[in-house]
Amino acid sequence: MRAFYKVTSNETFFNPAHIPILLQVLKKGVTMDIEDIKKQSLILHEENKGKIEVVSKVGLNSRDDLNLAYTPGVAEPCLRIADDPDDVYRYTSKGNLVAVLTDGSAVLGLGKIGPKASLPVMEGKSILFKEFGGVDAFPIAVDSHDPEKIIETAKMIAPGFGGINLEDIKGPECFEIEERLKKELDIPVFHDDQHGTAVVALAGLINAAKITKKDITKCKVVINGAGAAGVAIAKIFLSRGVKDMVMLDSKGALYTCRDDIQINKIKKEIAQATNIECRHKHGEEKDPEECARCMKGKLEHAIVGRDVFIGVSKPGLLTKDMVRSMAKDPIIFAMANPIPEIMYDDAIDAGAAVMGTGRSDMPNQVNNVLAFPGIFRGALDVRASDINDEMKLAAALAIAESVKELSRENIIPDPFDRSVHKAVADAVRTAAIKSGVARDGSREA
Amino acid sequence: MRAFYKVTSNETFFNPAHIPILLQVLKKGVTMDIEDIKKQSLILHEENKGKIEVVSKVGLNSRDDLNLAYTPGVAEPCLRIADDPDDVYRYTSKGNLVAVLTDGSAVLGLGKIGPKASLPVMEGKSILFKEFGGVDAFPIAVDSHDPEKIIETAKMIAPGFGGINLEDIKGPECFEIEERLKKELDIPVFHDDQHGTAVVALAGLINAAKITKKDITKCKVVINGAGAAGVAIAKIFLSRGVKDMVMLDSKGALYTCRDDIQINKIKKEIAQATNIECRHKHGEEKDPEECARCMKGKLEHAIVGRDVFIGVSKPGLLTKDMVRSMAKDPIIFAMANPIPEIMYDDAIDAGAAVMGTGRSDMPNQVNNVLAFPGIFRGALDVRASDINDEMKLAAALAIAESVKELSRENIIPDPFDRSVHKAVADAVRTAAIKSGVARDGSREA
Repeated sequence: MRAFYKVTSNETFFNPAHIPILLQVLKKGVTMDIEDIKKQSLILHEENKGKIEVVSKVGLNSRDDLNLAYTPGVAEPCLRIADDPDDVYRYTSKGNLVAVLTDGSAVLGLGKIGPKASLPVMEGKSILFKEFGGVDAFPIAVDSHDPEKIIETAKMIAPGFGGINLEDIKGPECFEIEERLKKELDIPVFHDDQHGTAVVALAGLINAAKITKKDITKCKVVINGAGAAGVAIAKIFLSRGVKDMVMLDSKGALYTCRDDIQINKIKKEIAQATNIECRHKHGEEKDPEECARCMKGKLEHAIVGRDVFIGVSKPGLLTKDMVRSMAKDPIIFAMANPIPEIMYDDAIDAGAAVMGTGRSDMPNQVNNVLAFPGIFRGALDVRASDINDEMKLAAALAIAESVKELSRENIIPDPFDRSVHKAVADAVRTAAIKSGVARDGSREA
Repeated sequence: MRAFYKVTSNETFFNPAHIPILLQVLKKGVTMDIEDIKKQSLILHEENKGKIEVVSKVGLNSRDDLNLAYTPGVAEPCLRIADDPDDVYRYTSKGNLVAVLTDGSAVLGLGKIGPKASLPVMEGKSILFKEFGGVDAFPIAVDSHDPEKIIETAKMIAPGFGGINLEDIKGPECFEIEERLKKELDIPVFHDDQHGTAVVALAGLINAAKITKKDITKCKVVINGAGAAGVAIAKIFLSRGVKDMVMLDSKGALYTCRDDIQINKIKKEIAQATNIECRHKHGEEKDPEECARCMKGKLEHAIVGRDVFIGVSKPGLLTKDMVRSMAKDPIIFAMANPIPEIMYDDAIDAGAAVMGTGRSDMPNQVNNVLAFPGIFRGALDVRASDINDEMKLAAALAIAESVKELSRENIIPDPFDRSVHKAVADAVRTAAIKSGVARDGSREA
């Protein structure tokens, strides 16, 4: 992303590989837009000194008000909570408060810019939570990249929060941090870069399958990119019944006997659950005959005959020829940001039946904001102890069903359609109750 | 406080020593008030589900708004901050955000009720910050009473905050926590239970001295209570030039060769700086002749001939006879809460020239809310690296000077007089610049 910015502002750092992409971007008039957006965004942030403020929900205009909201009246809710800790949900803001927690190690496409530089994103996320989910969210930028310290900090501040949204933490640390916090805390923990993207991608796939009349459980899927989002998409697709899937990282297809993934717990897990031609388990003796049946090699090999391409990798990696090599009516989600693995028009030219990206200026934007506000809204409403697979699947289905006039250019709803967030919250609430993680089931939809 | 509540609600736990105090309280009609306040406070907290919310300072009504406040525009302020970390004050809310951080170990008069049960107080404090200082404050309730973990948590979350207000952390841990954080962080750290109370008490003393025509530097002072507030009052009084002071804990006067305070760093420091008849230093050989000159024993002995009584101890400890044994025109601040060391009328009957308490229903309320909002406002405005003695003294003087019609019943201003907070902020800003801790001096008053 940074390199692209530099190109457009005539600075020196320049990647020749971006030329064809840049030309397409220029054709769409995005360069002017992005320059304008950059300038206006700086002004917006500077004039307002950031984007969040903490305000009172109660009046404070007299000594009477003070007596109720502060001493001496405040002692009473304190004593009630001291007697029954569950009353913290009754008398405080905890039940509606989510920490947007990061260490700034993988911020947008900008990389490891650190906790302070990540704050504009965390504040942005916080106001999206409020705007679309009515959730009070607050940025916590942790001053360490050590997973143990991030985990410890989240646990230490947990008493004041109803949930924790992990954000922009790089892999593989993000997997361990989420797993540990889910186990060790009694409030829901959700890594949005993984599951938000996965939920919306699945929603998109559900609707794309309707249009192409494909059966998701029989779709052959290739996922290019094995970062946080790719791994979560693989997991939710498996939950939804996808059986034939292969995932690639920058070195090619993941298969269980690939030497360099033996030390990567997550990639090994994914390799074992995907790449159906290959059933080696790590630790077992390699069987050359078996191994020969693994899907190996690069994308151009792995994509042949596939129904679905999911890109969470880098700009321009998917060529028109590759699209042409896919099964009939291929479904493409090219979500590299801001420049997708293939541009919208190119994918359609090459025969894509449905195409989505991460961009707001192209059809079918896979946008996390469709998921996280409603997911937390639903989870908080029933005081869920977790955001589990059932809740994520329910969210994806609700998003898919929120599309009113389904067409190849309209498979994902508009986040400004407020009914989407309500539908997601309702579905998540019900799924939480059914799956037994709701601690307050009185608000069933 | 709890015991008193139980008495008034006819429950079983009952302290006979409270009978005379209770009778006075009943005389003032406070019992009904407090019962009403308790009920209404519970309703207020439950109906609003707590008292704080996190809202957006910018509009979020269109894709254009999203593009500026979130991706792709938000990348630009992120990059600026990555290039120059100081820009975090320019483009984010950090510069106006204060963490109200506690472990819930000494909440109001309720004691160690824990982080969750402390939240109503922390939320109350947060809205007072906003209402009176325009400061965005957010509760951080830490899930540990271990000072090292509290320090570590504060340091870990510091990137997102412009300052840290420590709250309701018990002594002696509070002293170490504040000292360490002041040293190890570059943002101001302020323990309000210590310094807020001390600043307002000093403001009261300054005005009481005007009325009684006493010279503060020549006043003989006795401080009853050696907790967080007592220690901070002793320190700020010493800074203001008080020379003859003695402090008592529950065992009597602190003097340097008292055996049981040798292991308490803070009490030893106070003993060395006060009790002028006694100049032993710990570790030196005790000189029986010297030791004989120490002020020892209980309050009834220590108070004889004193000009000023400061009570930060327990209800009813100061008798009318003790007041009568003081110097001419004695000044009394009996700040035990909710029941002071001596009731207002009794102190006046016994000859007090000026009397203050911690209560809103008696004259001259020593109320922290006069100090902390303006102190942080001033410190944040000039991006102070510390809240130092000069700033605290300036705040006390500003509060004292804010009283318009000085009288024995009006030595401390009303917190609803907004000009007080502005005066405090102005004075603190100027003191920060003069004392060299302001990192942005452009906003001098």
